[in-house]
Amino acid sequence: MSNVPASAVGELPLIGITMGDPLGIGPEVVVKALADPELRQRARFILLGLHDLLELAADQAEINPFWWREPYDPSMRVRRGVLLGDFDEIAPIRPGSVREPDALAGHASFRFVEEGLRLLRGGSLDALVTAPISKQAWHLANHRFHGHTDYFARRCETRRITMAFIVGTLRVALASDHVPLFELRNRFTIGLVHQPIDLLSTALREWFGIERPHIGVLGLNPHAGEGGLLGDEEQRIIEPALTMAREAGLRVSGPLPPDTAFVPDVARRYDGLVAMYHDQGLIPVKMAGFHEAVQLTLGLDVVRTSPDHGTAFDIAGRNKADPRSMRAAIEMAVELAITRLQKRVASPTG
Amino acid sequence: MSNVPASAVGELPLIGITMGDPLGIGPEVVVKALADPELRQRARFILLGLHDLLELAADQAEINPFWWREPYDPSMRVRRGVLLGDFDEIAPIRPGSVREPDALAGHASFRFVEEGLRLLRGGSLDALVTAPISKQAWHLANHRFHGHTDYFARRCETRRITMAFIVGTLRVALASDHVPLFELRNRFTIGLVHQPIDLLSTALREWFGIERPHIGVLGLNPHAGEGGLLGDEEQRIIEPALTMAREAGLRVSGPLPPDTAFVPDVARRYDGLVAMYHDQGLIPVKMAGFHEAVQLTLGLDVVRTSPDHGTAFDIAGRNKADPRSMRAAIEMAVELAITRLQKRVASPTG
Repeated sequence: MSNVPASAVGELPLIGITMGDPLGIGPEVVVKALADPELRQRARFILLGLHDLLELAADQAEINPFWWREPYDPSMRVRRGVLLGDFDEIAPIRPGSVREPDALAGHASFRFVEEGLRLLRGGSLDALVTAPISKQAWHLANHRFHGHTDYFARRCETRRITMAFIVGTLRVALASDHVPLFELRNRFTIGLVHQPIDLLSTALREWFGIERPHIGVLGLNPHAGEGGLLGDEEQRIIEPALTMAREAGLRVSGPLPPDTAFVPDVARRYDGLVAMYHDQGLIPVKMAGFHEAVQLTLGLDVVRTSPDHGTAFDIAGRNKADPRSMRAAIEMAVELAITRLQKRVASPTG
Repeated sequence: MSNVPASAVGELPLIGITMGDPLGIGPEVVVKALADPELRQRARFILLGLHDLLELAADQAEINPFWWREPYDPSMRVRRGVLLGDFDEIAPIRPGSVREPDALAGHASFRFVEEGLRLLRGGSLDALVTAPISKQAWHLANHRFHGHTDYFARRCETRRITMAFIVGTLRVALASDHVPLFELRNRFTIGLVHQPIDLLSTALREWFGIERPHIGVLGLNPHAGEGGLLGDEEQRIIEPALTMAREAGLRVSGPLPPDTAFVPDVARRYDGLVAMYHDQGLIPVKMAGFHEAVQLTLGLDVVRTSPDHGTAFDIAGRNKADPRSMRAAIEMAVELAITRLQKRVASPTG
């Protein structure tokens, strides 16, 4: 994966945005989020998507199209504003009144992601923002991945990928995500807990510019096991993972009693928190800001953000979608890309 | 257990308050909470505790003693204000500079609870508020219970006791509490899920005056199992518990995806929520209001509330404790006692 930034000194960062499933709310939230000219002035953007669907969404939201369009080409260049790389290889998609997972739409959204990752890995983008896809639609189109994160991990041949969620100053990485709760028992290892500590520390340092980030690591059990009375995973697994992290020079505390770790006065002692399972991290993230949370993929060596919602087929095409999470995902991609560019300028050999 | 209210028509409700561990923050938060004369006018109070420790706390907080004192006697009567039932049977406890679990203090706090429950069950109190005890101190004093709830369950010879937490309009009952997370697998049964639905419905109806409460029941797994892809407990256990509840005429919805159930716009669709495990319920409760949450015991047929914090030996005796949770626990006990009294007046045969 390329370590060379896409943008030169003095240039605005270049952000790729995939449109997501054409029949989901992706086109609508992308158009609504980028409709703000102030946001469009902070970076250069390449949209990977379909002109017809974006135009329909803009029309319904009474937004004047603000992009110009070229047939998608991996070597396309953008000097300012928003360039749409239009995938005219794909047969026209005409949404009906009921929107649901569809093979052609699934293939389209897969192609956007495939090319987005290609540009990102080739160093042609500073960051990638992905609008929601439908796993079911991918499967209908014979693309057998369990979503974006799985796709990135397999294409980049790494298992060291972790989901993180950011809302305001709350930054939470997950040790495990889409695992049945009780099945986690068989996968709960020192490595599983250590990885998000390591990746979150790196991201906070390199992307957020926090020199020596302090990571709080949650316990698994009520009261973090209460000294072994309420479970021994803290002693057998989490403590050794903390020791490993400390040996590597990281600044970590824990295991924290999960129920108080997200109380604002406690959470603000840490630059980031590591949660052991999906809902331990996502209940507080979504409570803290349902429409403002951003998902950030850790472990890719490139910046990829996404909104914290799905395709929402039930409200798609009706101009009802809330673009705040997409807007936050774009803003974060821009900010992280800028921090990363500045670090490269400061230490060009990095 | 008595169904006869302690107070007659026209009388203020009678609330018992146990002082908790003499060396913890119990005396301090009780004194600070009741220092407000406005609160003292809403009910009559019997404190079960030790005069010396309450006086010390009042002195440190520069509060004039507002109670009068009598040696504790189960038949003591209070016409208005605050009467301290002083346990002069107990040898004087003189706190040192370091406060920690202590056998004599443990025995004292046990006696307060023992007598509090006796008065409650005998119909001499309309509600009981318990300040925090130390399990370790109880064990040092050879009282082998795992805390208040365990004590009440065993003395009342019922296993049908459920912890619930209230903060603002968020009311959450727990299907399980102090269980190691992965051990819950072996205890996760239809009955375990059904009981808190049933008890919470009853409490909302009888104590909160909500005629036909709507209960939201959370899933166990990420995305509530996503139709079986991420775990089958929703289908095998939670759905049948919901069916059982519906057959009994209760109004229930679920299993709800846990991560969005506590988003304010979602939570407010329900009069109460049932969480499957300790942190699933307590992370959101403590985020919603760390210093304002009240614990309510369901299944006792009598009202018992307590603050949502422990003895806090580390700050005890320094006038640093925050009394808001204790105050909220007292206020809730008063309100629930009044609703209960009014229901009895309306239907005296109930």
